[in-house]
Amino acid sequence: MADPRIGIISERLKGIRSIIAVSSGKGGVGKSLVASALALSLVKKGYRVGLFDLDFTSPSTHIILGIEDVKPKEEKGIVPPRVHGLEYMSIVYYSGDYASPLRGADVSNALIELLSITRWGNLDFLVLDMPPGIGDATLDLIRLIKRVRFLIVTTPSRLAFETVKKLASLLEGLKIPVVGVVENMKMSRHKSIRRQVERMGTAFLGEIPYDTEVEESIGNVDKLLGTTFAEKVEEIASKI
Amino acid sequence: MADPRIGIISERLKGIRSIIAVSSGKGGVGKSLVASALALSLVKKGYRVGLFDLDFTSPSTHIILGIEDVKPKEEKGIVPPRVHGLEYMSIVYYSGDYASPLRGADVSNALIELLSITRWGNLDFLVLDMPPGIGDATLDLIRLIKRVRFLIVTTPSRLAFETVKKLASLLEGLKIPVVGVVENMKMSRHKSIRRQVERMGTAFLGEIPYDTEVEESIGNVDKLLGTTFAEKVEEIASKI
Repeated sequence: MADPRIGIISERLKGIRSIIAVSSGKGGVGKSLVASALALSLVKKGYRVGLFDLDFTSPSTHIILGIEDVKPKEEKGIVPPRVHGLEYMSIVYYSGDYASPLRGADVSNALIELLSITRWGNLDFLVLDMPPGIGDATLDLIRLIKRVRFLIVTTPSRLAFETVKKLASLLEGLKIPVVGVVENMKMSRHKSIRRQVERMGTAFLGEIPYDTEVEESIGNVDKLLGTTFAEKVEEIASKI
Repeated sequence: MADPRIGIISERLKGIRSIIAVSSGKGGVGKSLVASALALSLVKKGYRVGLFDLDFTSPSTHIILGIEDVKPKEEKGIVPPRVHGLEYMSIVYYSGDYASPLRGADVSNALIELLSITRWGNLDFLVLDMPPGIGDATLDLIRLIKRVRFLIVTTPSRLAFETVKKLASLLEGLKIPVVGVVENMKMSRHKSIRRQVERMGTAFLGEIPYDTEVEESIGNVDKLLGTTFAEKVEEIASKI
């Protein structure tokens, strides 16, 4: 029998105009930082925005945004708290922030549960902070949220970009739209990633220089929004 | 009924003196580079060494070592090819290097299959390049290889170290020995990670400064061994 919660999910998401999954081929490329800054930039531009941290491998947007003490409200489902002008929800509210790893089927179950109980308001954008790579959770999410579009974050490193090619090819095979690729932590002027992305027929959304201030602004949204990093993400936000 | 392959695994590993799982809380911290350089350093010191890439999320040691064309030999199982003085095996030989994501049960199955068919020689060290984090594969591996010891790689970033705390606490709960923590990509002199590691009661094995030459030496072992990065890993190799 089909899980009855799956039918509820599209109902829960129907007030949302655009769903952007911020993803990456591998971890450590700044995906969660880009997702957080992207959501905050869209708020600044006057949009109604939600941020949903689904990265069960290492949920970190609550640390980046410094909102560790806020909890969602239970009311015929879960109402995401409003923080820094956005509606916020995270898998840490489900799994807790401890060392309990979720095994395969539990991850699927957690995703379905979270998507079916969360009561988003009417939103222009819902930004998803995805787990890195092309594991079960990515495949589940594509199945559960049909109209999602992907934004892929990479670094200039060959090791990171090799995994981007795999992710992009998977998404192409599944006919999932890719908004474009962002090159983060750039330290040189090489155009190699841009060229390779364009050769793949994918939009190159921009470069973000390596910015040492970002680490110091983790947990402090005002400081984060003042960085060059955030300025670049704001330019990218205009393109999606 | 128990999978008969599981009994074969300890048989396959019985000629190996020490098994080191190079792991991390999250991706992008340089885990595969440390695992590769560690294996090469141990070869340089005269040990018999194997390197086994089990990071199904983004296998990359074959790219780092520039051994993309070598294939293992089938002979009553699989005999790992000898490259750069070490016995080498990777999950890419099982999954292929394409975009086909392995789903949960397939990952377990791939691990069991690989561990039960690979015929290692008599080795002083087998270095495992683990998937990042505390997912199914990590738990499976702990179950399948009982005498594994973990070496954890982190960066100075708070986001990376938060996930190290979770991994270390999981391993402690499972009574799995941790050789120690390595702080990679260090750009400042802060001692904060060292202090936190020591407070956890875990050995701090050393710092590796951020080294821009590493990216350019991907695929070229001689160049890699000439970097400051490799020099630091060699110091760490003396401590395990």
